[in-house]
Amino acid sequence: MCTNQLEAAFASSYLQKLNRDKPLIHCMTNDVVQNFTANILLAIGAIPAMVIAKEETADFVHIADSVLINLGTITQWSSKSMLIAAQAAMVTQTPWVLDPVAVGNALTFRSNIAKQLLRFKPAVIRCNASEILALADKTSIGKGPDSQDSTDAALNVAKTIALQYQTVVAMTGKTDYITDGYTTYVIDGGDIALTKVTGVGCALSAVVAAMIGCNTNHLLAAASSCLMMKKAGELADKHHGLGTFAISLLDQLSLMNAARLLEQ
Amino acid sequence: MCTNQLEAAFASSYLQKLNRDKPLIHCMTNDVVQNFTANILLAIGAIPAMVIAKEETADFVHIADSVLINLGTITQWSSKSMLIAAQAAMVTQTPWVLDPVAVGNALTFRSNIAKQLLRFKPAVIRCNASEILALADKTSIGKGPDSQDSTDAALNVAKTIALQYQTVVAMTGKTDYITDGYTTYVIDGGDIALTKVTGVGCALSAVVAAMIGCNTNHLLAAASSCLMMKKAGELADKHHGLGTFAISLLDQLSLMNAARLLEQ
Amino acid sequence: MCTNQLEAAFASSYLQKLNRDKPLIHCMTNDVVQNFTANILLAIGAIPAMVIAKEETADFVHIADSVLINLGTITQWSSKSMLIAAQAAMVTQTPWVLDPVAVGNALTFRSNIAKQLLRFKPAVIRCNASEILALADKTSIGKGPDSQDSTDAALNVAKTIALQYQTVVAMTGKTDYITDGYTTYVIDGGDIALTKVTGVGCALSAVVAAMIGCNTNHLLAAASSCLMMKKAGELADKHHGLGTFAISLLDQLSLMNAARLLEQ
Repeated sequence: MCTNQLEAAFASSYLQKLNRDKPLIHCMTNDVVQNFTANILLAIGAIPAMVIAKEETADFVHIADSVLINLGTITQWSSKSMLIAAQAAMVTQTPWVLDPVAVGNALTFRSNIAKQLLRFKPAVIRCNASEILALADKTSIGKGPDSQDSTDAALNVAKTIALQYQTVVAMTGKTDYITDGYTTYVIDGGDIALTKVTGVGCALSAVVAAMIGCNTNHLLAAASSCLMMKKAGELADKHHGLGTFAISLLDQLSLMNAARLLEQ
Repeated sequence: MCTNQLEAAFASSYLQKLNRDKPLIHCMTNDVVQNFTANILLAIGAIPAMVIAKEETADFVHIADSVLINLGTITQWSSKSMLIAAQAAMVTQTPWVLDPVAVGNALTFRSNIAKQLLRFKPAVIRCNASEILALADKTSIGKGPDSQDSTDAALNVAKTIALQYQTVVAMTGKTDYITDGYTTYVIDGGDIALTKVTGVGCALSAVVAAMIGCNTNHLLAAASSCLMMKKAGELADKHHGLGTFAISLLDQLSLMNAARLLEQ
Repeated sequence: MCTNQLEAAFASSYLQKLNRDKPLIHCMTNDVVQNFTANILLAIGAIPAMVIAKEETADFVHIADSVLINLGTITQWSSKSMLIAAQAAMVTQTPWVLDPVAVGNALTFRSNIAKQLLRFKPAVIRCNASEILALADKTSIGKGPDSQDSTDAALNVAKTIALQYQTVVAMTGKTDYITDGYTTYVIDGGDIALTKVTGVGCALSAVVAAMIGCNTNHLLAAASSCLMMKKAGELADKHHGLGTFAISLLDQLSLMNAARLLEQ
């Protein structure tokens, strides 16, 4: 693993702060990953709260430390709640993460919602290469929620989007790129099995939300999150099948600490 | 573990009845814990059925042995179904459990729904200390779905609510108190890891629903449920991380029997 | 296990094709099994995508290789999306699977939706004995989502439904019968634990969707899916409780190959 030791040191200190502060994360995420997301947030020491009713989202944004908005199983009514929450987050300056699951793909409804959400200034966009291309109206070869595009090829687009929306783009894949358009962190490693468990990307977006809920450097917070997920994927059991791998990934995240982050 | 042996004996006989009767539990619960709840009900021998459409809930209450209503990810449309189900349950005298997840917390929408639901006479309210304080309009220090209030401090409020609504309050935390306002069972033990897996409290509410679905003493049924969950938490594997712990908790519930309940 | 070796040989070649083609499966399924379904599809090499908004379903049917429609937690709004998707699938000749969870049971709302869906020509109906009886307006003794009826007793009804709707019925239970009304495959084996994990039947419906997404013989594709699930249930760990069994089932599906399918 060619992890930058500097990034691992940051990840380590950011994780310690997370464990100390126990940020409350307001999650508006998809139906497939609600349980996995909540368990991963608990595993790293954050407090997840899934609140989606349009009557409640704005109020809850006020008491949350950060917000996650994930478009996976978006519907007309949930999109309204998400727009209310994102607007409330902009007003209260609560940092929030946008996970624009499967935008593009001829799914114009969610693509339009994603663009409306971008106006409310997400702190981080966590996505794959196909999704960032879609946000920039570029042709993608995405198929469903997965990306067939390489993050290398999409890096310049990611930088452009980051600059355009004054945000951080955490674009993940075989190689993760985390960029604000000026500075870019590159994270390799991880394991192919991470792409064969549903919701790992979605859960990573939640980890980013937790990290920015207690750390103001959003670029390093996002990079730390990506590094932590790749490291957990490397440490997890890959010898018994994908069911065991998913459980072991959660185990590894719950056991993550400075020493494990720093080990080669 | 300082478990009351008398309670363990009751839990043991109640669990045997549950295994024999295989009650059908109509679950209206939140999106985070649907799977975990269904698997825990199956593990203890009950039959879960998640039915939420307002066109179906009243009819299904008629054929169910008990009903679970959990406000975790409540929305306007699901709240309507829940109100219909609770009213139907009162009419048919089908016992039902209210789990008022995260009431208080400036979430006035769900707090209002919870109070409307209370008029339909739940057999048991399963909650944490912050939630019982919120139901009594007391100031709580809850943060999201978790309680920062101690169950010891909230016991008198729990008794008052139990008397006011002629119900059983099963208030869980480090120490569980199960009370009808006259008699109170106290259950210690369990494990801190139980608070680090999402939906353990929600699943416990489902276990209570299963127990009251085939046992008419709701106070002892609720106490038996709390004891069984704490015992499973003690027996579950805590040496490999939180992913393994959650799976092992489910294992332990599926293997639970009189001998395990009674062992010190 | 008395598995037909011929069926195992087909299952083996169908699984190989699935691994090569990586079909995109448009899943419209219930809230209890979304995660389990997605992970099982990934485990066998398919790409799951849960798309439910009525604004998106018809467009997504166009790019999907097959569609799964499962009525488990149906609501008025999701039923509209499902009807749109099924109609689109008929028009585009995208094969689709109907899983009519818990029809009958005095649940007239979903029973009516199921009959409307049948007009849009599902390639396969994957169900239990109680559900096929309900689709034929016969009296069933189903209780909730589980079947108390035997598949043996319902076989003639299954054949009649298959002929009436020119479809394949994959009716599963202790013995699985997969029939188009003319030819019937019989699959024994499996394990009782498969009935004690929520969503195994629902996930099997998703496996059938994956198999018909890349194999045009829908009868053999469905039979192969049933055989594969029974085999995985036999190979999975049954010595540590139901939590471990569910994870091990996922492990076994991810490790499934020709040799394992063919071994006695």
